Amino acid sequence: MKFLSFLDARQQGLDPQLGIALDDGKVFNVTAAVRALPPGEAAGLPLSLDALIDAEATPLQELARLVENPGNAGHAVDVDQIRFLPPVQLRRNVFCVGRNYREHIIEGNIAKGIPANTFPEAIEFFTKPSTAVVGHGWDVNRHAALTNSLDYEVELAIVIGKRGVNISEADALDHVFGYTIVNDVTARDLQRRHGQWFKGKGLDTTCPMGPVILHKSAFGNPNAKRLELEVNGELRQSASTDEMIFNVQAVIAQLSAGLTLLPGDIISTGTPKGVGYAAIPPRCLNVGDVVKARVEGIGELTNQIVA
Amino acid sequence: MKFLSFLDARQQGLDPQLGIALDDGKVFNVTAAVRALPPGEAAGLPLSLDALIDAEATPLQELARLVENPGNAGHAVDVDQIRFLPPVQLRRNVFCVGRNYREHIIEGNIAKGIPANTFPEAIEFFTKPSTAVVGHGWDVNRHAALTNSLDYEVELAIVIGKRGVNISEADALDHVFGYTIVNDVTARDLQRRHGQWFKGKGLDTTCPMGPVILHKSAFGNPNAKRLELEVNGELRQSASTDEMIFNVQAVIAQLSAGLTLLPGDIISTGTPKGVGYAAIPPRCLNVGDVVKARVEGIGELTNQIVA
Repeated sequence: MKFLSFLDARQQGLDPQLGIALDDGKVFNVTAAVRALPPGEAAGLPLSLDALIDAEATPLQELARLVENPGNAGHAVDVDQIRFLPPVQLRRNVFCVGRNYREHIIEGNIAKGIPANTFPEAIEFFTKPSTAVVGHGWDVNRHAALTNSLDYEVELAIVIGKRGVNISEADALDHVFGYTIVNDVTARDLQRRHGQWFKGKGLDTTCPMGPVILHKSAFGNPNAKRLELEVNGELRQSASTDEMIFNVQAVIAQLSAGLTLLPGDIISTGTPKGVGYAAIPPRCLNVGDVVKARVEGIGELTNQIVA
Repeated sequence: MKFLSFLDARQQGLDPQLGIALDDGKVFNVTAAVRALPPGEAAGLPLSLDALIDAEATPLQELARLVENPGNAGHAVDVDQIRFLPPVQLRRNVFCVGRNYREHIIEGNIAKGIPANTFPEAIEFFTKPSTAVVGHGWDVNRHAALTNSLDYEVELAIVIGKRGVNISEADALDHVFGYTIVNDVTARDLQRRHGQWFKGKGLDTTCPMGPVILHKSAFGNPNAKRLELEVNGELRQSASTDEMIFNVQAVIAQLSAGLTLLPGDIISTGTPKGVGYAAIPPRCLNVGDVVKARVEGIGELTNQIVA
């Protein structure tokens, strides 16, 4: 089941609606359908994607019945009637993993002129702030006054569903709600100049996320999924998550060592080779560029670079 | 005026109370006093420290009148009747500044065996997650299973009061609500092993904050304040904020370049020399240690290390 958070053009206001992406391309408005139920029948059904993630258990069967009820057909919305929101309303920064794909590390080492086979011994975690997060279809600012080298990074992102600390690799997937896509847009010059990566990774609008969260029950093994990124239709990144040095379970285990993870936390797991700065010559994002980030099974996250 | 967030032992529940630290050592419970007002008189008066920080303007005179009203004397609480809370309920990570004090940078360079006079050209920003934040008097976990080198760092922390992006140094102090103290407790071995500093800076309970937020109107020049830290009564750090390479205005300007700051954001501005790992031999925090971090004019933040 694919969940999204959206604004419904048929409604007034800015109340995020919980949606389920349907096979026919429409979006089922769960929030509206639940609000229309008699009070007794609405118990336990979520009114927002954040509430669904926070819930002790995910009521997949109840949601399926809601969608399939012929009386609820009117709650299916055409996709051109919605505005995608970021799938979670962040309560803290997005956790991110630095260099995690072997070939990407090598391309970076070569670009920096250090020995190609120099790999991290432990995960390089950093964060992106809430003000960086935008949804599918939203604009990404070029930040031309600040950076000469805006770059893209397609990443598989984990959505945590269950609180935990010191989570073992064996238990890690029990703490996952689902998965989404993050484009970890990066100002390479700021990333280098400021030593720590936060500043170059933290500019407003540089964390596109979405379009949906795929529930883990429908994703299968997260460590064997294709991910791709294209700029203006040209394929720039294409890899499999099986190339990660630290897989999804290892990321959760290392991050949660002594650090409590909370429902709604997002952990972006790193990007494969093909980033712009490592190309010869380097290729930066420019105003007007359309960037599409894809992860197998989840969908496609599209954003345009604007002045 | 010194503000704090606290639990009042005379009340049921876990509702954070807004307090004002009085000269006689007591704490005035603003929340209780405002709730006791006739509805017409309570308008514009905050019920929490977060609400006060979010407010367009800080009603200092109205709050002073509330405190001075003899009829409100019963709202003054003995300090042994309160439990300090972290002064803000974070909505995103604490922003932190890396190496910012000249002598601390030199001690670190020497400890790492690199040329002593190697200084950052731009601010090294990183973050600490909300799960790290604890209040005055709370325990800090030793995390003995994870680290062999837990260290302290006294820091002046800025509390943002007004939203802004691309804030100039000239305008920077207009965006400040006040100042507090942060002890940026750090697992040095994790900080090094994970490359990026987040993991070594992000463990649960390793961001003591408080005890109060001093409103900026009572602080004067933030770039000429003494700060000190002692462990079990032994002075370890003692410096002035005038030793910062990047002063408060520069920190706000560099951080807010392309990155929107929000009311309630905390920016910790870096630590002076005297940290444990740079001592010869290095001195780590151990179970039972009592750490007191002081900033002139704000107060003293005390925490004990526990197993």
